[in-house]
Amino acid sequence: MSDWPRPVDGVTVPRFAGPSTFMRLPVREDAAGLDIALIGIPFDGGTTNRPGTRHGPRQLREASGLMRRVHPISLTEPYTLCRVADLGDLPTNPTDLMQTLDLVTGAVAKIRKAGAWALAAGGDHLLSLPLLRGIAEGEPGLGPLGLVHFDSHSDTNDTYFGGTRYTHGTPFRRAVEEGLLDPKRIVQIGIRGSLYSAGDMDWARSVGIRIMTIEECVDLGPDAVAAEAQRVAGGGPAYLTFDIDSIDPAFAPGTGTPEVGGFNPREAMRILRGLRGLDIIAADLVEVSPPYDPSGNTAMVGATMMFEILCLMAETRARLRPL
Amino acid sequence: MSDWPRPVDGVTVPRFAGPSTFMRLPVREDAAGLDIALIGIPFDGGTTNRPGTRHGPRQLREASGLMRRVHPISLTEPYTLCRVADLGDLPTNPTDLMQTLDLVTGAVAKIRKAGAWALAAGGDHLLSLPLLRGIAEGEPGLGPLGLVHFDSHSDTNDTYFGGTRYTHGTPFRRAVEEGLLDPKRIVQIGIRGSLYSAGDMDWARSVGIRIMTIEECVDLGPDAVAAEAQRVAGGGPAYLTFDIDSIDPAFAPGTGTPEVGGFNPREAMRILRGLRGLDIIAADLVEVSPPYDPSGNTAMVGATMMFEILCLMAETRARLRPL
Amino acid sequence: MSDWPRPVDGVTVPRFAGPSTFMRLPVREDAAGLDIALIGIPFDGGTTNRPGTRHGPRQLREASGLMRRVHPISLTEPYTLCRVADLGDLPTNPTDLMQTLDLVTGAVAKIRKAGAWALAAGGDHLLSLPLLRGIAEGEPGLGPLGLVHFDSHSDTNDTYFGGTRYTHGTPFRRAVEEGLLDPKRIVQIGIRGSLYSAGDMDWARSVGIRIMTIEECVDLGPDAVAAEAQRVAGGGPAYLTFDIDSIDPAFAPGTGTPEVGGFNPREAMRILRGLRGLDIIAADLVEVSPPYDPSGNTAMVGATMMFEILCLMAETRARLRPL
Amino acid sequence: MSDWPRPVDGVTVPRFAGPSTFMRLPVREDAAGLDIALIGIPFDGGTTNRPGTRHGPRQLREASGLMRRVHPISLTEPYTLCRVADLGDLPTNPTDLMQTLDLVTGAVAKIRKAGAWALAAGGDHLLSLPLLRGIAEGEPGLGPLGLVHFDSHSDTNDTYFGGTRYTHGTPFRRAVEEGLLDPKRIVQIGIRGSLYSAGDMDWARSVGIRIMTIEECVDLGPDAVAAEAQRVAGGGPAYLTFDIDSIDPAFAPGTGTPEVGGFNPREAMRILRGLRGLDIIAADLVEVSPPYDPSGNTAMVGATMMFEILCLMAETRARLRPL
Amino acid sequence: MSDWPRPVDGVTVPRFAGPSTFMRLPVREDAAGLDIALIGIPFDGGTTNRPGTRHGPRQLREASGLMRRVHPISLTEPYTLCRVADLGDLPTNPTDLMQTLDLVTGAVAKIRKAGAWALAAGGDHLLSLPLLRGIAEGEPGLGPLGLVHFDSHSDTNDTYFGGTRYTHGTPFRRAVEEGLLDPKRIVQIGIRGSLYSAGDMDWARSVGIRIMTIEECVDLGPDAVAAEAQRVAGGGPAYLTFDIDSIDPAFAPGTGTPEVGGFNPREAMRILRGLRGLDIIAADLVEVSPPYDPSGNTAMVGATMMFEILCLMAETRARLRPL
Amino acid sequence: MSDWPRPVDGVTVPRFAGPSTFMRLPVREDAAGLDIALIGIPFDGGTTNRPGTRHGPRQLREASGLMRRVHPISLTEPYTLCRVADLGDLPTNPTDLMQTLDLVTGAVAKIRKAGAWALAAGGDHLLSLPLLRGIAEGEPGLGPLGLVHFDSHSDTNDTYFGGTRYTHGTPFRRAVEEGLLDPKRIVQIGIRGSLYSAGDMDWARSVGIRIMTIEECVDLGPDAVAAEAQRVAGGGPAYLTFDIDSIDPAFAPGTGTPEVGGFNPREAMRILRGLRGLDIIAADLVEVSPPYDPSGNTAMVGATMMFEILCLMAETRARLRPL
Repeated sequence: MSDWPRPVDGVTVPRFAGPSTFMRLPVREDAAGLDIALIGIPFDGGTTNRPGTRHGPRQLREASGLMRRVHPISLTEPYTLCRVADLGDLPTNPTDLMQTLDLVTGAVAKIRKAGAWALAAGGDHLLSLPLLRGIAEGEPGLGPLGLVHFDSHSDTNDTYFGGTRYTHGTPFRRAVEEGLLDPKRIVQIGIRGSLYSAGDMDWARSVGIRIMTIEECVDLGPDAVAAEAQRVAGGGPAYLTFDIDSIDPAFAPGTGTPEVGGFNPREAMRILRGLRGLDIIAADLVEVSPPYDPSGNTAMVGATMMFEILCLMAETRARLRPL
Repeated sequence: MSDWPRPVDGVTVPRFAGPSTFMRLPVREDAAGLDIALIGIPFDGGTTNRPGTRHGPRQLREASGLMRRVHPISLTEPYTLCRVADLGDLPTNPTDLMQTLDLVTGAVAKIRKAGAWALAAGGDHLLSLPLLRGIAEGEPGLGPLGLVHFDSHSDTNDTYFGGTRYTHGTPFRRAVEEGLLDPKRIVQIGIRGSLYSAGDMDWARSVGIRIMTIEECVDLGPDAVAAEAQRVAGGGPAYLTFDIDSIDPAFAPGTGTPEVGGFNPREAMRILRGLRGLDIIAADLVEVSPPYDPSGNTAMVGATMMFEILCLMAETRARLRPL
Repeated sequence: MSDWPRPVDGVTVPRFAGPSTFMRLPVREDAAGLDIALIGIPFDGGTTNRPGTRHGPRQLREASGLMRRVHPISLTEPYTLCRVADLGDLPTNPTDLMQTLDLVTGAVAKIRKAGAWALAAGGDHLLSLPLLRGIAEGEPGLGPLGLVHFDSHSDTNDTYFGGTRYTHGTPFRRAVEEGLLDPKRIVQIGIRGSLYSAGDMDWARSVGIRIMTIEECVDLGPDAVAAEAQRVAGGGPAYLTFDIDSIDPAFAPGTGTPEVGGFNPREAMRILRGLRGLDIIAADLVEVSPPYDPSGNTAMVGATMMFEILCLMAETRARLRPL
Repeated sequence: MSDWPRPVDGVTVPRFAGPSTFMRLPVREDAAGLDIALIGIPFDGGTTNRPGTRHGPRQLREASGLMRRVHPISLTEPYTLCRVADLGDLPTNPTDLMQTLDLVTGAVAKIRKAGAWALAAGGDHLLSLPLLRGIAEGEPGLGPLGLVHFDSHSDTNDTYFGGTRYTHGTPFRRAVEEGLLDPKRIVQIGIRGSLYSAGDMDWARSVGIRIMTIEECVDLGPDAVAAEAQRVAGGGPAYLTFDIDSIDPAFAPGTGTPEVGGFNPREAMRILRGLRGLDIIAADLVEVSPPYDPSGNTAMVGATMMFEILCLMAETRARLRPL
Repeated sequence: MSDWPRPVDGVTVPRFAGPSTFMRLPVREDAAGLDIALIGIPFDGGTTNRPGTRHGPRQLREASGLMRRVHPISLTEPYTLCRVADLGDLPTNPTDLMQTLDLVTGAVAKIRKAGAWALAAGGDHLLSLPLLRGIAEGEPGLGPLGLVHFDSHSDTNDTYFGGTRYTHGTPFRRAVEEGLLDPKRIVQIGIRGSLYSAGDMDWARSVGIRIMTIEECVDLGPDAVAAEAQRVAGGGPAYLTFDIDSIDPAFAPGTGTPEVGGFNPREAMRILRGLRGLDIIAADLVEVSPPYDPSGNTAMVGATMMFEILCLMAETRARLRPL
Repeated sequence: MSDWPRPVDGVTVPRFAGPSTFMRLPVREDAAGLDIALIGIPFDGGTTNRPGTRHGPRQLREASGLMRRVHPISLTEPYTLCRVADLGDLPTNPTDLMQTLDLVTGAVAKIRKAGAWALAAGGDHLLSLPLLRGIAEGEPGLGPLGLVHFDSHSDTNDTYFGGTRYTHGTPFRRAVEEGLLDPKRIVQIGIRGSLYSAGDMDWARSVGIRIMTIEECVDLGPDAVAAEAQRVAGGGPAYLTFDIDSIDPAFAPGTGTPEVGGFNPREAMRILRGLRGLDIIAADLVEVSPPYDPSGNTAMVGATMMFEILCLMAETRARLRPL
């Protein structure tokens, strides 16, 4: 028990002091003995518009210093339920996209094999693909996962720029094609923004993905959105991916492809809180781009969502694999 | 058909590449053959507080590069319904307000005479006056127009600074006085902010203008606001003017006279979408001031609203003057 | 009557011209003859995280230049009801916390003895303590006050950093201990954010403080929140304290301990407007930190709230102590 | 002696506290009894490119709070030599250029008639014209003045935009034409930047203006530049005008027409210090535009130059009109 | 002669109006008939540290609107000497580095074959490689070029990240290896910053590259630096590459790998002016990264240097290939 | 040898990846076995003007990631000469100045007793006092130290705000009074800025401190300044303190008391390089205030100076206490 990792307490050491790690947790070199590993993936090579998410992990660590230990509503205590630590950044090559996909897949598989579940901070949204690949490689028996996907875009395009198959606009099409996700258990929440063509969502709908536009989400309200996400993605292990651009850019300007008219953070937190009971066994929070975030608010929103997701994962872990 | 203007596609050419034009549309020197002309009016000489809207057209062009071709809810395809292009900036003289009013009036009249409808990006709100004058001059038979007016201020003051009759706080009083607008068909949406005196709105109410304060708008909800706007401004051709300060300054800080407590963009988009069916035959989006917009979000909100308005105008045009 | 203070009118003198005072009111050296004194307290020595509120008073003065004379909904005219002026900044010592507490207490007592009610602009939240002390010293017969407290934190911790009793996280515990506040008439509105431990609120609840989390506030709606605040804090003179971090950091990033998921300003204004009838006999607005406010929006929100609070105080004053 | 104005001391009252006035001096309503009046002129209607200098006086006041009482090299004590105070802002109309020229001329004439010399903070450079007119009107016997002119532009164009004679690019041509300045006693220091045409300087040179390009200034060094300025502008009363864009935009980005490759502040201070002995009887510092000055450094440079100029004026005043 | 391209004049049309093109020149679709083509290359895939230079061309176009027509010292009139236009942006794929190298090479070759010389705005420094390749392909007889290279880094590393051969730290090693440059005619100006190892420059020196550290440049002074550059790179056609990080980051913060202690722009302009007579037959200005440039000064410095380089190229062109 | 600490190499792991430590060095919990300990002291309680240096250590760590391993001119390799690591942040209490002085003194003494020399990153300049106290306590035989002091202020005031003896304007007066420094071996470099009174420097001069104003430094040139510093501070062990406000605020805006007209970084680096041979046995770099540093350049300058100082200390250590 003596090496059960605990975050530094802001009442003892001021929040601006000491190393900047996820949630002020200790850094571990190895996933062994951890239930949940917080990892950074500093890579933005899949970005089609504004870059900068390579700097996301550092700024998310810094902002996460504002998080305390206990969830204010559910009173979940993730660090009591689970052994959680900061595992540092995965290896990447900023100038080589295909190599980075392999590096990340390998590193994630290793973490999973060591028994730890990953909560990753991006980086751009293409990273969900090697995360899903690595989980499948690390724990082959899991089978295709369900997906709860917060985003303003469906990210199920086929190709860009005359044939490029791997960008941050294509990961979930690739993941379905590769059998990593079960399309009938995918729910996309907050989709909005103008379309390239009226048929942009045709493929997604044809394979059974449930698309909830922001208009539908607003009309239903957060609690009903959460219930629908439970219905679609439930019944097995699920991955949660949170693109920060699901949040309105006034709250989260620091991102690559902002879309006006998104969730405010309160709504997103309420939906996340409504996902208790789902089996979230891995997750990511992506597309935080510090160069476009002069006030730092994007990272603060991101870190807050990471804490909400961590609580969901810790409860799942404690439920499925009690100590 | 070969010169029907089409926007550059972000899936082919990255959004940060190529010239920065409204909606990535081609630039035309002449309005002939166009249904709708997107124009910039870089002028802020009517500003009583913080300047900078002279830089609005450029930043709105840049931000509009994020807009795609199809409306996400109505699936309206404005560039299929109409020939739309960027007609560049109208002539102005930054140091001469009265001359600029004449220059703009003349240029707008010429566009209207060529058969194109203008959607203008300001510039300050005084520019609505020469826009209305130019429309009347270019198409004399139209008669007084209805007006859907998004704003936090009524802009119906009489004079400023001891007798000045032309500022961005007076255009709609002048337009009513000049017979350009029918006051009984004017609806002002989102009015708020403290008052100079308890009688600030007396003139507007006395001529029959329908003022909807932000409190009333919030109590009614966006759909009912849109219905009321349809009721008031319907029954004939109408002008739509969108002052970006109708949006709360957290979403749109880059403006000259911000007022806390405004619409969030989602609400404004919902109201705009509820205006389908109105005969919007010209419009402007004004008061975007880039120097006060460090994150660029104001222009992004503005460009998004321009796309919503463009869809309304394209539908009207296709309905009233089919190809 | 000739020296009844009046704000400069923006229709006469542009808002960017002339000295920057609270609400463009005249500056007075002395509280004598005033009903309400607007004061600044430039001090941030009680801050445990990000500093900078020492610069709050200046930026709030600047932003308050956008306020006009009449409340847009209630049509309250505070400067007709009461004699209001800017009394400048109270003395502080930026490097000596305990001395500053005494300096502020003394200055506030003197103002109260002169017959004026203070509306203070901070500075950090610890300043509520010497404000309450000064009021008690200046008007001993008032007895323990009720408190309407807008905040994302309860600020009722006991100690920090191994025994420090005076920080911006402890003022209301101290004030209850000192008999300055009646805990059963304290209502805290908007509380949220993760907790140090599950028992963080135990003391507050044990003494009878009514804590309304942001979740409860959202579920109830602004009007019901205001009604509850009236119920709890009514029945006697009350103090109103408004921590700007009760507002979501997208609207008010310039603060020391931001918490994602707060009120938008429209909601807060609606709650404040629902407090009419309460006997608000002094107030503060605190935690505006300009260095973290690149767009200046935080101060604009703060100044807007100050005007709302001023209207409440002016009505109370006119009701309780007619001219 | 008791009302001899003295600045507030930063060792006693922190610099961030109290009202923001020029050099922390007291505010006076009237120039009577003053030797030197510090005035603001919040107007940018003559600007041909980026606006915002209407906000210059406020930011210069704020920045000037960092100035102390004694010159570090010459040990000049301006507040001992002269009675100096902040006379507030002159009247302007932001939407009417020609009216503003008259308002400023009148106000300056009145100050001069009261016996005070003006050191003005702009505002744009066109304001030098009404300042010179006002001085001539207030003290007719002075005759044409010499001019020491720091700038990156000559500001002697004839017209803009098809005939406009009054912009911030024309004041010194107008002033020479009106007999306010003696062109043979004009020296322009730091001129640089690309030219509209090879003949841009022809008029200036034809009337005898001495143009020192930045290249010449760098080759000569600050001390020789000062000596040349003394030679040209000496032999009678002189006006000093300091356009902040003479400073390189890395040091002073907040200006309307920046030109790369200017003075660093240390060089400019050295030249100013070398002007001791010249009869500087009025001056301005113009073109500080806060919206383009995110770090505030421009105003800080501006305030520092104002202090240097104030020392020159105070010495001149004490020499020419001893108490 | 009627289609000889001319820039828009700022005395006629305000600089904030109209389309944003390089130097306010007309846009051409084709290089035919041009002497010098200004091109943008929006790509940052070779960046090893902070990204964002993909946005460089747009911001450089915007900033170049401040340039006028005539060089202030040499009085060179590039638009009279040569036909110069904005040829838009070359094709790139933001997610595919190797494809982009080929796309750029092909496009540059085509321009060169059409008879135009390219002055390119990046983008990251790797782009110099396809620029050199394209020139060699488009005009095979040129032979290895000389190189005048302004930079804080030598950019002659062999590999990064375990074997990656194409990054913005390797272009000139590749170019020498490929025979595109004559290493004995390469001069690198302004090199500084700490080293990975004491042997970092060994390869460069071994092939004969002349490295001038910033210390040496400061000791020599700009004129002697220019003379040395003439000596080394003279005797044949030369390429000029200007990495904006050669400038000190206070003047040019918007770049990916800033190094404290660089040139100020005045020094760099002086060196460039000293290169007259060299046969500069193509050039680039790279590494301007707008997301790191809050004040826009970096692009302004970059545009100023582009104008200086354009004058050099125009003189060379007029000398070598008179009309 | 296996645990000899080495920085992470930017050619292997991108600079934006991995934990943010000083110079990318490993973190150590204990000073034992180290030659030089890099420490942060996050405290700004002694600040009399703009706060924020409590956030300095984090931003300096981040910026120091740009430093490589070898000095570019001297080719000094500090990590080969010495065992250097990041020892984290010392304990502080942001709300208690006197307690913090004691905490820092104790921690520094402990490091010194363990045999390591400290290079500290502040924090405000008052921290030099407990650093000097801690060194004296940890190594009593050292005796009064010499001091090389880069600053724009002498920091030898006696009291502030009516008697406060401990602020960032007083540390060196206290240190001389306490016998920690030998005033005859103190040299202050870069002093400038206006004075409170003509006698501000009297005490410093009376005890023998050598004050070099910026004017003198500019006239002498960097090499002669370094020689004079060697002359004054030589002849025994010396402390080096570098206040970032010695650098001109265009290069280092993020500081609490900026003074226009300071060193550019190139000059400061040249002076530091000229100090080789002095026995620098401890040092600090203070007054970096991130909230006032929107571009991050201040921290970059600070980190660069820290590397220069580290090289000086490593050479001293290797000379005085060879391995």
